[in-house]
Amino acid sequence: MKLPVFGVEEWLNQHEKSAVYDIAGSSIASLTLEELFDLTQEQPQAFYQQLHQKPLDYGWIEGSPDFKQAVAGLYQQQKARNILQTNGATGANFLVIYALLEAGDHVIAHYPSYQQLYDIPASLGVEVDYWQTREDQAWLPDLKELGAMIRPNTKMIMINNANNPTGAYMTKPYLEELINIAREHDIYLLSDEVYHSFASDHLLAVADLYDKGISINSMSKTFSLPGIRVGWVAASETICDQLRLYRDYTMICTGVFDDMVASLALKHADKLLQRNQAIVRTNLAILEDWITGEAKASYHRPNEVSTAFVRLDIDEDIEAFALRLLEDYGTLVVPGNRFNQANHVRIGYCCQPQILQAGLSRISQCLKNIQ
Amino acid sequence: MKLPVFGVEEWLNQHEKSAVYDIAGSSIASLTLEELFDLTQEQPQAFYQQLHQKPLDYGWIEGSPDFKQAVAGLYQQQKARNILQTNGATGANFLVIYALLEAGDHVIAHYPSYQQLYDIPASLGVEVDYWQTREDQAWLPDLKELGAMIRPNTKMIMINNANNPTGAYMTKPYLEELINIAREHDIYLLSDEVYHSFASDHLLAVADLYDKGISINSMSKTFSLPGIRVGWVAASETICDQLRLYRDYTMICTGVFDDMVASLALKHADKLLQRNQAIVRTNLAILEDWITGEAKASYHRPNEVSTAFVRLDIDEDIEAFALRLLEDYGTLVVPGNRFNQANHVRIGYCCQPQILQAGLSRISQCLKNIQ
Repeated sequence: MKLPVFGVEEWLNQHEKSAVYDIAGSSIASLTLEELFDLTQEQPQAFYQQLHQKPLDYGWIEGSPDFKQAVAGLYQQQKARNILQTNGATGANFLVIYALLEAGDHVIAHYPSYQQLYDIPASLGVEVDYWQTREDQAWLPDLKELGAMIRPNTKMIMINNANNPTGAYMTKPYLEELINIAREHDIYLLSDEVYHSFASDHLLAVADLYDKGISINSMSKTFSLPGIRVGWVAASETICDQLRLYRDYTMICTGVFDDMVASLALKHADKLLQRNQAIVRTNLAILEDWITGEAKASYHRPNEVSTAFVRLDIDEDIEAFALRLLEDYGTLVVPGNRFNQANHVRIGYCCQPQILQAGLSRISQCLKNIQ
Repeated sequence: MKLPVFGVEEWLNQHEKSAVYDIAGSSIASLTLEELFDLTQEQPQAFYQQLHQKPLDYGWIEGSPDFKQAVAGLYQQQKARNILQTNGATGANFLVIYALLEAGDHVIAHYPSYQQLYDIPASLGVEVDYWQTREDQAWLPDLKELGAMIRPNTKMIMINNANNPTGAYMTKPYLEELINIAREHDIYLLSDEVYHSFASDHLLAVADLYDKGISINSMSKTFSLPGIRVGWVAASETICDQLRLYRDYTMICTGVFDDMVASLALKHADKLLQRNQAIVRTNLAILEDWITGEAKASYHRPNEVSTAFVRLDIDEDIEAFALRLLEDYGTLVVPGNRFNQANHVRIGYCCQPQILQAGLSRISQCLKNIQ
């Protein structure tokens, strides 16, 4: 199959090891098990004893009952039978696209967002149209445009809510309008929801709002555990039945340890979300201060999402600027051209506050030295 | 994409929970961590201490240096740079097929073997021809037939060596003839090598024998650790470079814990292989005894591989027989129709010896009661 380079991943793979101040990533400071046990007040001894004696066999093919129940509890309308465990959200998106689409179908993809959501369908011979985010509409795409893009063979709309890189968030009224369009044309709505907006106190999931809505999520972003490769699909039983056939071909199951950690963490989802909300708010205040004081930087403030898309008032090519920023100032951001947007950089501001502050002040130095 | 049901997985998923005597699986008794530490004489305390404090972040994207070095050491010609870690062999096969093939290509697939190897290419619009195993040639496919099947657009040959379900093994001279045909036509050779034959004291890997040979393996079968989802590709640097682009879209990375366990286990590969060789030999002797004494069962003795394909001299439809065997005798095998072969059942004989003995004696009872 033909695929372009995965722009963001290539950039991060190439450069993240050489950064002193890495403010490029989209995660919220990853947890150790020690921190997880401290946070949840669970007993490490009991966990390790269980792990020690557990056969490392194929385990629970679709995720353990504890896992499925805990995930269902994150939603308003889902039961354990509506949940399928996958190898991360990457595995979940891939599974849904591979299972439900085929050559000749048409899809409409929120753009820019997670590159997988448009380039995997294209590689399979699916026609893809981009539904562009608009900086002048606070980085939301236009619902009227969406209606005009529907064709007779449109089978799926893919969104990323909240959005990476922009940090924009589709509210419930916005989603309801979007779903009305999808329902009218009987179209699947795939929503990659790994970037929780802490401006909302619960997941705003399309699976809860629409019978052909498919909600994708994972332990990697909102729950700070990317090192367990656990994601999931939440969808109707009809859709889950279709996906089951394809899981046997693409993944079989996730790991025994990974399911144990995910189940434990999700039992205390509220504590993890509180911890991460505090990080997002503290760090967003630091970013906001910097934006206010830096004449050459501006943004639409992200909706308490872990990434921000910052406009820089410079003439230099954005990737050249980002490379110089890394080489001369040790600071890593993602240049906007990797999302097909010049003049912007993605800042992942949910790292350690001192790293964020140091990185931002180095961007200012670099901007100053352009003159 | 259009895929048929994954015959073996569907059968196992539906029935394995209700079996008293499960002699259907292809694994060699999965290890617990306790057993792994006992076997390797590694210190559990040190391992758990390290695990406790390790950030559960994305970790080593392609596998840790320890992992890659240990895997390379299983081969004759491979270096760490020729190894890419994947989410199991399932993930590895998927990655290779998705990355290197496209609609309109032609492939030739060893048949029957792992269903993924022919049905994934077919789903992507690749033309697939089956290269049939022959019971009258000890379950090896015919090399002369292979030559005649090559077309101008043939891009890949896929084999499963040793073979599941038959337990047949392609020796080095056989592989060299096969490679001569592939080389003459400049064709990739993908070899799923997860079923090590303990008749050989080392992996007989196509990556060591051919520059377009791609060796797939995992921790699940030979190393008895399916609950860590770790597999790998061993191939030339040119091929690895092509696959790298696609890993970002399909998996990103495997888990932090899974890599730690795999690295520890592979450091003691010799001890794990000795343990499993002993299980295979002991249990194969039990199976051989049963075959000798059971007039209605016969087989080509597997080459010290964990599965055997046993012919049953009955008139009943094989899946109906297998269902009756499960319901009335509590014994699970895989009916041969799931591999498109009537009259046979796959027996996974590397379970606990007492389970094997009980299961085999119940097959005899079931056969006796047909009369």
